[in-house]
Amino acid sequence: MNATPPRPRLVKTVDELRGILDGVRRSGRRIGLVPTMGALHEGHLSLIRASKAEYDYTVVTIFVNPSQFGLGEDLTEYPRTLDADMDALTGCGADLVLAPSDEEVYRPGHATWVEVGAGAEPLEGRHRPGHFRGVATVVLKLFNMVGAQAAYFGQKDYQQVLVIKLMVADLDLPIEIRVCPIIREPDGLAMSSRNACLSPDARQQALVLWKSLCLAGELVEQGECDTRIIAERMRQTIAMAKDARIDYVALVDPDTLEPVDRVEGRTLAAVAVHIENTRLIDNCLLKAES
Amino acid sequence: MNATPPRPRLVKTVDELRGILDGVRRSGRRIGLVPTMGALHEGHLSLIRASKAEYDYTVVTIFVNPSQFGLGEDLTEYPRTLDADMDALTGCGADLVLAPSDEEVYRPGHATWVEVGAGAEPLEGRHRPGHFRGVATVVLKLFNMVGAQAAYFGQKDYQQVLVIKLMVADLDLPIEIRVCPIIREPDGLAMSSRNACLSPDARQQALVLWKSLCLAGELVEQGECDTRIIAERMRQTIAMAKDARIDYVALVDPDTLEPVDRVEGRTLAAVAVHIENTRLIDNCLLKAES
Repeated sequence: MNATPPRPRLVKTVDELRGILDGVRRSGRRIGLVPTMGALHEGHLSLIRASKAEYDYTVVTIFVNPSQFGLGEDLTEYPRTLDADMDALTGCGADLVLAPSDEEVYRPGHATWVEVGAGAEPLEGRHRPGHFRGVATVVLKLFNMVGAQAAYFGQKDYQQVLVIKLMVADLDLPIEIRVCPIIREPDGLAMSSRNACLSPDARQQALVLWKSLCLAGELVEQGECDTRIIAERMRQTIAMAKDARIDYVALVDPDTLEPVDRVEGRTLAAVAVHIENTRLIDNCLLKAES
Repeated sequence: MNATPPRPRLVKTVDELRGILDGVRRSGRRIGLVPTMGALHEGHLSLIRASKAEYDYTVVTIFVNPSQFGLGEDLTEYPRTLDADMDALTGCGADLVLAPSDEEVYRPGHATWVEVGAGAEPLEGRHRPGHFRGVATVVLKLFNMVGAQAAYFGQKDYQQVLVIKLMVADLDLPIEIRVCPIIREPDGLAMSSRNACLSPDARQQALVLWKSLCLAGELVEQGECDTRIIAERMRQTIAMAKDARIDYVALVDPDTLEPVDRVEGRTLAAVAVHIENTRLIDNCLLKAES
């Protein structure tokens, strides 16, 4: 017997992955999938624990997907920390890690893409053209590689979850989409692989995202329903960080992502802000008393 | 015991289909899929027999897919003959037929599409804009609904097979694509559901497609390699039908569908011709002596 917690098996190719998973399926075990871009943090680990709790075998994919990064975005700067990721995964319940190369995922001549609908247009879609086409395509590919019964995503990427759910419905994908809550640092900053890119000063400034969302919640609790007023107060909060540049502060319908004039029932507050050179997003659901 | 050949089970919804197929999979049986638009003929039946020979359980889908028809095309005229199809399927080896409504396949708000690459651009793609986007999307959906190990397609829709194979490779779909030869009437006309739309006179004229392909084969056998000359002779043959209107006569690389100047090694000869109001396609592979 060995007291060392088990380290998940690491594979680099789809063929190797499928060989292993065929055996898993033959033994009747059900598979949960956690797609990630690596640089793992507690947010990712919470997804893996959720999969571990519900499924017999958990596959984590680690792939920084080039096709979801636009020109001038941070594809080359995105943190890649496979060794540390494997350490983080040790003992947390993942059974298998797929960490493929770009060439393993996109064969030469790759030309088939998922064209996503209106849910991908506003917010992130407006500021990151082509982003969700890349996300949907790679997620579909990962689903097809793994053949899991369920896949786990974090609520922090709210619109990503929405786009993926629409894709699953539209393409009749035989997979459950599970969404787990945002995991935050003790001071409220939403955990993100990109937080590692923040200087100590920028890390402090980055708190304005969460502060603006908390303010929105307080305003709604106090009876404020006018989304123009709430958004303006959120912008003022974010502007208190000297290096903040706002992409959007949005109050939208949580199902359609269309802007709403008043907070009535559930409303999504979502923000995207550059702090120095790092782009961060965060969101929360506002609930008006009815 | 009953001497009547077994009639396949008919289902109309994806839920019902999945319930049955879950049981089939649990029993360890492997599933073959034959996607069709109905109006079944010997070409379809040859696909079903091939599936029956290789797999334990054969699913036939019958769905006239609106999204692959363009404006002004024959969506409303396309033959729909479900009762006759069920008769044709009796005893031929199909186990289950899915014949869903348009609404069952495309939920309200459907907005996710498969964007196909360069293989979909020439030939049919040029004359039927959006056709392969609709084909690829519905085929992907049917693959996801059924979860078969293999799907069977006819070589008559040569470019369709190519586009589907590219999609399967690009999206890592866990399915084998099997391609079966064109089945012809005794006089050479390629079997097609659209043949039912031909008047007796048009039926006779429709032979020019096959005649033009036979001529191409003869010319190549006689040593003619110049594709301009071969195509011109093919056009002359087709023009002998008084109601023929040519969409294309093409001599192309069978893998890329790019035009070739000379028949060297394998070359695809493909034709699309309107006879009266019916658009027909046919093709054959030419092989030059090397």
